[in-house]
Amino acid sequence: MEYFISDKIRPMQGSAIREIFKYAADPEVISLAGGNPDPKTFPAKELAGIAEEMLTEQPVLSLQYGITEGHTPLRDAIKARIKRIENIGTDNDELIVVSGGQQGLELATKVLINEGDTVIVEEPSFIGALNAFRSYGAHLAGVPVESDGMDMDALEKVIKENKNVRFIYTIPTFQNPMGVTMSVEKRHRLYEIAKKNGILILEDNPYGELTFDGTKTPTIKSFDTDGIVLYSGSFSKVLAPGLRLGFICAPRELIAKIVIAKQVSDVHTPMITQLLATEYLKRYDLDAAIVKMRANYAHKCQTMLDAIEEYFPEGVEYTRPGGGLFIWADLGHGIDTLALSKKAVEEKVVYVPGNTFMTDMSLPCSTLRLNYSTMSDERITEGIKRLGKVFKDALK
Amino acid sequence: MEYFISDKIRPMQGSAIREIFKYAADPEVISLAGGNPDPKTFPAKELAGIAEEMLTEQPVLSLQYGITEGHTPLRDAIKARIKRIENIGTDNDELIVVSGGQQGLELATKVLINEGDTVIVEEPSFIGALNAFRSYGAHLAGVPVESDGMDMDALEKVIKENKNVRFIYTIPTFQNPMGVTMSVEKRHRLYEIAKKNGILILEDNPYGELTFDGTKTPTIKSFDTDGIVLYSGSFSKVLAPGLRLGFICAPRELIAKIVIAKQVSDVHTPMITQLLATEYLKRYDLDAAIVKMRANYAHKCQTMLDAIEEYFPEGVEYTRPGGGLFIWADLGHGIDTLALSKKAVEEKVVYVPGNTFMTDMSLPCSTLRLNYSTMSDERITEGIKRLGKVFKDALK
Repeated sequence: MEYFISDKIRPMQGSAIREIFKYAADPEVISLAGGNPDPKTFPAKELAGIAEEMLTEQPVLSLQYGITEGHTPLRDAIKARIKRIENIGTDNDELIVVSGGQQGLELATKVLINEGDTVIVEEPSFIGALNAFRSYGAHLAGVPVESDGMDMDALEKVIKENKNVRFIYTIPTFQNPMGVTMSVEKRHRLYEIAKKNGILILEDNPYGELTFDGTKTPTIKSFDTDGIVLYSGSFSKVLAPGLRLGFICAPRELIAKIVIAKQVSDVHTPMITQLLATEYLKRYDLDAAIVKMRANYAHKCQTMLDAIEEYFPEGVEYTRPGGGLFIWADLGHGIDTLALSKKAVEEKVVYVPGNTFMTDMSLPCSTLRLNYSTMSDERITEGIKRLGKVFKDALK
Repeated sequence: MEYFISDKIRPMQGSAIREIFKYAADPEVISLAGGNPDPKTFPAKELAGIAEEMLTEQPVLSLQYGITEGHTPLRDAIKARIKRIENIGTDNDELIVVSGGQQGLELATKVLINEGDTVIVEEPSFIGALNAFRSYGAHLAGVPVESDGMDMDALEKVIKENKNVRFIYTIPTFQNPMGVTMSVEKRHRLYEIAKKNGILILEDNPYGELTFDGTKTPTIKSFDTDGIVLYSGSFSKVLAPGLRLGFICAPRELIAKIVIAKQVSDVHTPMITQLLATEYLKRYDLDAAIVKMRANYAHKCQTMLDAIEEYFPEGVEYTRPGGGLFIWADLGHGIDTLALSKKAVEEKVVYVPGNTFMTDMSLPCSTLRLNYSTMSDERITEGIKRLGKVFKDALK
C-alpha cells in the first residue's frame, strides 16, 4: 500500500545524529557526538525518596488527570525561580509546564506559524528546533553566528528579504552547537530589531545556568517590556532529561493558545514527573547542585580544549565556550566533515558534522560539533587524539 | 500588541468541558460531566515501590534521555499483550509508545493530513480527538452513530461527498460519548468500505477492556491484513491517566513517520512513567486488576441506569452500555441541553451537553453525556434525581 503522508512530514528524515549514535553504541567507539548531561549530576536518590512518598501519600494527585497548564505549585516555583535568577516575568506574562524544552518549541511553532511562513534561525542551530519548525512547513532563513552571537546586519537583511517572518529563534547563551554567547549589546539590538519589525523572539535557554565561572548574561526576556519574547526553559540539563520537563514563559495571550495546543497534544505533562520537580525544588538546593555541575563541566571542557590544543592540526579554528556542553570546530580548506565522519568511525571516534545544524543540510560543511559532558578525562583526551589523526590525514 | 496566531489554532477555543469542570470544583455540585477513571483502581502502592526501586537501582536508565520509539521492554510487553488479548499485530506492524492516547491521535493526524483534508468521524465523538484533528486544519465530516455503531450507508455517502478523505476515526467499543459498541458485521463492513476507497482507519480503543460481563468484540485492527488500520491504545483507564501512557500499533511505514513527528514533539515519553508500566506489567497481574475494574464500573453503571429509570421523565431515551464510562441520553422535543445546563448548575448537578461532541458545536442538541465512574452510589443516585427534576421542568 502507498500511504499518503502530509506535506509537512513527508520530506522529513530521522535525525542524522541518531544514525551516528548507532556507531556510538560500540563501547570501543568514543562518542563526541552526544548532547546528554552527565548522569552523575542526576539527584537519583533524592528523586527516589520523593517518588515513593508522593505515590504513597498523594496517590490521586500523582496518578489522576491533571490540568493542561501544569501543576500549580510547580508553575509557581518556576515563576519564582526565573524571577529571582533571570529577572523574568511581568504582569503580562504567564507560564506553562511542558514535556521538555522540545515540546515548548513545537507547541509555540504550531501556534505561531502557517505553512510557508518564515522562521529566522541562527545558522548553525539546534537540530531539534529546526526540525520542529520544518514539521510545520516553516521556511527557515538562516543568520550567521559570530563569536559574540548572531550577525545583526545579516539579520536585518534577512528580515527585509523574507515575507511573513513570524519569529526569530535564538539560543543566546552557550549556543548549541557553537558554544558561543550573544553579547549584551547584541541582545538589545536583536530586541529592538524584532520590535521595530513586529516579529516575536523565541529565546531558548537550556544551558544558561551551566556557566563555568558564574558569569551570567541577562536573558533577552528580562528586558521584554513589549511582550514580544517567548522564553523556553528546560530541566533537562539541571535536573534530568529523562523526566521530560520544561516550560515556556510568554505573554498571557500566547500562553492561552499554547495551552490549547498542548491540550490536544498530550492533555498534560505526567503528574509524577511534575511532582518530582516540585518537591525537589522545595526540599533541596538546586542552585547549590548547579554550582557543582558548573565545576564538573568546566573541567571537562578545559580537558577537551587542552587536548585540541595538543592534537588538532594547526589552523583548525574552534570556540572556547564559557559554559554549556559544546565546542564547535572548523577545519576549513573545503573539507566535508560529513564525508570525513566515515574515516573517524574507522578510527573509532564520532562527532556531529556541521551540515546537521544548517537550514540546508545538503550543503557540505567544514565544521563539526564536539561534546564533552559525559566522558572521563581519559576518554575525552583519547577521543580528541584519534580525531586529530583523522584531521591531520585529511589536511595533508 | 496584536499577535499573529496560525490559521489552525486561531479558531480553537478551550474545551467546553473545562468550563463545566469549574462548577464541578464546588463540593456541593454533583458532577456527571467527568471522564476520569475511579482512583480506587490505581495501583499506587505497587507503583510507589517500583518507582523507588528503579530510581535507586537504575538511575541512569530512569533519568537519562531515552529513544523516541519508547523503552524496548515496554514496547515488547505491549506487543505481546495486544497479540494475546486482541489478536493485534502482524509482521507488517510496528508499535510506538506515546504520552497518552491523545498524543497518538495528534501525531497520527500531523503525519496523515494536510490542512483542508477530510477526516471522517462518528457524530458524536470524543472532543479531544475532534480538537486534535481541528488543530491541523482538518475538515470534519460526521457520520451518525446507531445503537450498533456508525451508520454504514451514511458513511458511504459521506465518502462520496468529500474530497481528500484521509482517515475514518472510530471508537468502536463502548464509544465516547455514547457508550455504544459497533457490531462485528459493521466492523467488517467498515473495513471493506475503507479498503475499497483507499482510506485509513484510526481505531481508538481506550475502553475496550472495561467490558462489564467479559464479552469482547474483535477489534478492527485484528483483521487488518491490508495495513490500513492504525490502532490507538491507552493505559489511562486500566492503569492511571496521570502517567500519560499510550501506544499506537500501525503499519511499520506509518510508525516510522509517527516516530519523526514524536521526536520533534517531545523527544520521548518520560522514562520513569515507562518504567512504572514496564515493571507493573512484569510483576503484577493487570488482567486480574481489570476484572475487578469491570465489576466496579458495571455496578456504578447499573446504579445510574436504575436511577434514570426511576427519576428521568418518560420518553427520555438513553443508552445501556456494555462497558466503558458513559451513558448518552436524548431529551428530544427540541430541548437545548447547553442552555439547560445552566438550570442544572442551579440544582447543583453538571453534565456535558451533546453539542460538545459534534463536528459543528454551534448547533443546539437535545442530547447529553453522563459519567458514573468516580462517584459513590449515593452521589450517582442523587445526581440523577436532581437532573430528573431539571428535565421534568424543561419537558413540562
